[in-house]
Amino acid sequence: MANESLIQRRDRALGAGAELFYENPIEMVRGEGAYLFDREGRRYVDLYNNVPCVGHGNPAVARAMAEQQATLNVHSRYLSEGIVQYAERLANLNHDGIESVVFSCSGTEAVEVAIMMARLVTGKQGLVCTDATYHGNSTLVDSMSDLHRKPTMPHHIHSFPYPDLYRPVEPGVDEETLSQLTLEHVSKAIDELKSEGSGFAALIVCSIFANEGLPDVPPGLMAQIAELCHAEGGLLIADEVQSGYGRTGRFWGYEKMGFKPDMVVGGKPMGNGLPISAVATRKDHVDEFRARKDYFNTCSATPLQAAVGLAVLDEIDRMGLVAHAGVVGDYLAAGLRQCIDLYEPIGDVRGCGLFLSVEMVQDPESKSPDAKATKTLANHLKDRGFLVSHAGKYENVLKIRPPLVFSQTDADDFLAAFDDSMKALCGR
Amino acid sequence: MANESLIQRRDRALGAGAELFYENPIEMVRGEGAYLFDREGRRYVDLYNNVPCVGHGNPAVARAMAEQQATLNVHSRYLSEGIVQYAERLANLNHDGIESVVFSCSGTEAVEVAIMMARLVTGKQGLVCTDATYHGNSTLVDSMSDLHRKPTMPHHIHSFPYPDLYRPVEPGVDEETLSQLTLEHVSKAIDELKSEGSGFAALIVCSIFANEGLPDVPPGLMAQIAELCHAEGGLLIADEVQSGYGRTGRFWGYEKMGFKPDMVVGGKPMGNGLPISAVATRKDHVDEFRARKDYFNTCSATPLQAAVGLAVLDEIDRMGLVAHAGVVGDYLAAGLRQCIDLYEPIGDVRGCGLFLSVEMVQDPESKSPDAKATKTLANHLKDRGFLVSHAGKYENVLKIRPPLVFSQTDADDFLAAFDDSMKALCGR
Repeated sequence: MANESLIQRRDRALGAGAELFYENPIEMVRGEGAYLFDREGRRYVDLYNNVPCVGHGNPAVARAMAEQQATLNVHSRYLSEGIVQYAERLANLNHDGIESVVFSCSGTEAVEVAIMMARLVTGKQGLVCTDATYHGNSTLVDSMSDLHRKPTMPHHIHSFPYPDLYRPVEPGVDEETLSQLTLEHVSKAIDELKSEGSGFAALIVCSIFANEGLPDVPPGLMAQIAELCHAEGGLLIADEVQSGYGRTGRFWGYEKMGFKPDMVVGGKPMGNGLPISAVATRKDHVDEFRARKDYFNTCSATPLQAAVGLAVLDEIDRMGLVAHAGVVGDYLAAGLRQCIDLYEPIGDVRGCGLFLSVEMVQDPESKSPDAKATKTLANHLKDRGFLVSHAGKYENVLKIRPPLVFSQTDADDFLAAFDDSMKALCGR
Repeated sequence: MANESLIQRRDRALGAGAELFYENPIEMVRGEGAYLFDREGRRYVDLYNNVPCVGHGNPAVARAMAEQQATLNVHSRYLSEGIVQYAERLANLNHDGIESVVFSCSGTEAVEVAIMMARLVTGKQGLVCTDATYHGNSTLVDSMSDLHRKPTMPHHIHSFPYPDLYRPVEPGVDEETLSQLTLEHVSKAIDELKSEGSGFAALIVCSIFANEGLPDVPPGLMAQIAELCHAEGGLLIADEVQSGYGRTGRFWGYEKMGFKPDMVVGGKPMGNGLPISAVATRKDHVDEFRARKDYFNTCSATPLQAAVGLAVLDEIDRMGLVAHAGVVGDYLAAGLRQCIDLYEPIGDVRGCGLFLSVEMVQDPESKSPDAKATKTLANHLKDRGFLVSHAGKYENVLKIRPPLVFSQTDADDFLAAFDDSMKALCGR
């Protein structure tokens, strides 16, 4: 393998086991739009990376970054027109209740801020999340990951089974029953927190249940969950790190799902590669947070974050990427859905906009998750020059989440490669 | 005030109470080397900002950032020559035991990683820190701040009084006695953790006790603390976010202080404004961390962090900034020390390299901390075009921590302004 010595050096310098994608990892050297290029000059169509939402190597973003870094990049305790403009623009992209923004660098940090703020304003500690989620990697936030695998739930956290019409908690339930069951599970988690003495501060959820594998969620359920949270005295935090920024064909995933969260957490695509994250919420929540926590984050709320963050929003507007994601996403989804009847291992195709999932099963009747086939399929696609990965509670969901500049032609090319890869997988 | 409408908009967009420096906050619009310029074109000599270590607007760093962002900026699960080189270079800047690096975006995130890793490799939970420290802003890491003010110590954390020859825990002790007392306090904290059942995972400390106000620490004490940690089965984590990267006249603060930590946490100056942080430690520690935690941080260990991080190290080398910080720092410290006898409110001048502190007191006998005078002095200096801030357990320590490119001429100018400001403060 050509990369063997680089892999060996990497094992020493970054520690053995630092994750690499694919059986034969790729050394990328260049990116442009929806494409990545390896050291041998081979082109890959990127259907995985959501961070470079306005395209790999986007020149307007790189220019904004370079100009601001060369001009001024300093912490947030001096006044800065740029960061105020950026916060105003982010707040205005949300519903009327959202006025103020707290910036950080990573999604993890923004989730930490949202939780701290929710705990402060409610005076309670308890958190509710799904049983197959991921919201970040700090000690607190990581404790929400993989709750279905863990015997204990530290940090005042209880989980509920995420709603999934393909694999419902009780077989054969309809949308209405699943909604009812999910609301009961959420209630139960809140009750448990209350009876333990933690109280209920907030429920945090990815608006489209991305890490859960993009399940089909009963319509109206999210609005009912929001109502329930408020009735129980808690807040609803929408983790929009994956679902936001046009990904679903609407600017925020919560718009697509028809609910209004109390706090909106943004991250990955905000900086097209520059670390930027944010919590947007009511001004009085932020005021209380500022008054009681001396929160300061050195490299956030900087002129650099502002310049790059605004350039990304400008590019999304200029290229009309929100609508584009909806149109191309629908086209791609329709193409994938045609494959369900052609290939037994495809159990389901779900998602919206440019975030789709293909659920791989051993057979359509048992619906037994097939994580191995999912990995094999991802490797087949990679060999054909298309980059995807896997997700979901059972790691059997092909995760399709390209840069928003991914075109209809790219979709056609991918659909051909997908068909070809499925044939190879099925030994045809 | 010219900035009133911007301040009002900021209060709404970022929440009221987001900290601003100085009675009349400054709107900065440009930076160059050790200088910042406000909207009216007024120049300030920067003696506060440690992030732009190789200078505000450093062109080589801005160029590296722009080129890499325009070429490729993608997550770490593809192979990348740059990030391996950067990790190798960081490891090599440390003592022999340090081989491998885990990258993150912020200092907080790197401290989280160090703690997670220490807990995994020791199988214990307990942490020891000083009673006036700050290591970051996540729920866990923030719980180490201001332990002297808090009645409870959650998260398996115990503190010890930081060593301070100016304000020793027992009046009039000499260096040897203070060392002995500090070691006893550390032992006590470890014993308490053990008897509570937490066990002892790690002691974390800024190598030069920056947030504690840069106290004079008895020579050899840090090496004794390292020995004690190892004897008790725990690890010593050096938080080098402030003390590292040439700040003290040595590359790492721990070199200046004469000890070898098990883990080295780097942050702020690493990216000259781009969020980069890292934990460097033994390979077997990182291997175990990688094997047991699926740690992934989207915008870290990227080609962008590598390109910018390497450019910063190149600039430090090219301009000889480590030695420079030692020389100019000594010169500046000598000038400030001459003021001790001239002005009663100056209780002490401490620090090393380009990180100095001036302890402000009500009178030299009582040594009563004078936080108000410290703030007034910072405002006087700002009015004269010099930027400093305050620190320390009692917020009565003037914090002097310029970009490393700060020159001897800048030092002369500052010393004149300092003298003038002290005269104003003392009503002369």
